Amino acid sequence: MSLVSFAKGHATENDFIIVRDRHNMAPFSPQIVQLICDRHRGVGSDGIVRAVKADLMPEWDGDPSLWFMDYWNPDGTIAEMCGNGLRVFARYLLDEDLVAKPKFQIATRAGLRTVWEKPGGVLRTSMGPAVIGQSTWVTVSGRRFDAISVNVGNPHAVVMLPDDVDLTKLDLHEAPGFDVGLFPNGVNTEFVHPAGGHHEVVRFFERGAGETRSCGTGAVAVAAVASQLCDGAWTIDVPGGRLTVDFDDDGAYLTGPAVIVARGDLVLPE
Amino acid sequence: MSLVSFAKGHATENDFIIVRDRHNMAPFSPQIVQLICDRHRGVGSDGIVRAVKADLMPEWDGDPSLWFMDYWNPDGTIAEMCGNGLRVFARYLLDEDLVAKPKFQIATRAGLRTVWEKPGGVLRTSMGPAVIGQSTWVTVSGRRFDAISVNVGNPHAVVMLPDDVDLTKLDLHEAPGFDVGLFPNGVNTEFVHPAGGHHEVVRFFERGAGETRSCGTGAVAVAAVASQLCDGAWTIDVPGGRLTVDFDDDGAYLTGPAVIVARGDLVLPE
Repeated sequence: MSLVSFAKGHATENDFIIVRDRHNMAPFSPQIVQLICDRHRGVGSDGIVRAVKADLMPEWDGDPSLWFMDYWNPDGTIAEMCGNGLRVFARYLLDEDLVAKPKFQIATRAGLRTVWEKPGGVLRTSMGPAVIGQSTWVTVSGRRFDAISVNVGNPHAVVMLPDDVDLTKLDLHEAPGFDVGLFPNGVNTEFVHPAGGHHEVVRFFERGAGETRSCGTGAVAVAAVASQLCDGAWTIDVPGGRLTVDFDDDGAYLTGPAVIVARGDLVLPE
Repeated sequence: MSLVSFAKGHATENDFIIVRDRHNMAPFSPQIVQLICDRHRGVGSDGIVRAVKADLMPEWDGDPSLWFMDYWNPDGTIAEMCGNGLRVFARYLLDEDLVAKPKFQIATRAGLRTVWEKPGGVLRTSMGPAVIGQSTWVTVSGRRFDAISVNVGNPHAVVMLPDDVDLTKLDLHEAPGFDVGLFPNGVNTEFVHPAGGHHEVVRFFERGAGETRSCGTGAVAVAAVASQLCDGAWTIDVPGGRLTVDFDDDGAYLTGPAVIVARGDLVLPE
């Protein structure tokens, strides 16, 4: 057995484990990721980040002094990045005195990300560009809705629901239907109830995960669609809490809470 | 915020959090239990035990020097005891050098329990009597099966499946039907494929939880029914691993693995 320093936290109820491996001494295997993220056999989480100094990651050729976000899905596959996971990782780096306040950068597989610590315990993070794509459709609860495709590094289909549809009544136990020709690798879907002004209420169905309490890139996708009509910052209410999205010429910025709920050591098999 | 020392572990993939509160300084509230056991907002588990010295628990009038198992369900209700949780609690007490090896006792709301540390990392625990009740029935996958009621402190209905039924094909997404007159507070159901000899393969549907990877009292109930025909120790294969049950005049004994997978501090709101 070996001990590995970890923390667990969540951002709008999207939960992540952070494992500290500054010297890149214990790269993840799919098996160890599956075990740690398993909610019965391990601590359990929606994803896991290994904190490694960026100069030790061959895939990173930027500033070598940064911390690298080695993000994995619970099924043992590598992912580029995760918006809510980025905030939990940033909160961890802040809590452990590993970065300078109130603004710092993080190296990710999706490129450089900037984090600002804001009042009230929230963090603002750069999310890169959100690119509006073509019109498409999504089916759910036996109805077909118009949707807009958005690429936020990963593919999204955003449905602005008509007034006659109750967001809370949509059946998201089953995966929504979508245009497989347009999204051959699947798509994340957002169902949006416009709450008036710059305020949207959203439910998510994430590919490979089902309905989730929150999705950072999904919130950005929703705001990107909404901001086609008018500028400004958007309040995005998700099942797990409240997010804010704003834009500038460099892309989108996601702001929201992130808290650490436990710290300690994982007991791992050799 | 406050920090509380904790460990998380599992016994045949039934997972529990142990919180250390030797001096009874931080009794649980339903809200804090719900938060800690929430798999997104907290660490997450199937149940939680507070480790308190028994002399500080008014409900205990036995040996005051024991550790008391203050067991709660994730919904914030108190439970008497939990067979798999007892082994994880026992493993914790052993690992933290809080009890004497290889045999010790634990105070629970269901009474005194004895634990033996056995070779190979398994623990044997006394479970009290398993009382066979009357014949009854359970419906699942559109079929009605004969069942036998068993009381192991909590109510069970054990179905010995006929040869023509494939245990792996039973649909346990929906709650099985049962005799509400006999079980007004619900019942835990066990579906058993007799594997020959003293060997049973079981799936569980626990009231309030759905299908689970393991149920300690359920395994005892199954062995109690099987042992009506012949004596001895019973191997009970459950989705999360292997348990063994034996009996003497004082009642049932449950033997199985229990491991700690993480240790550290919970960060709790005030």
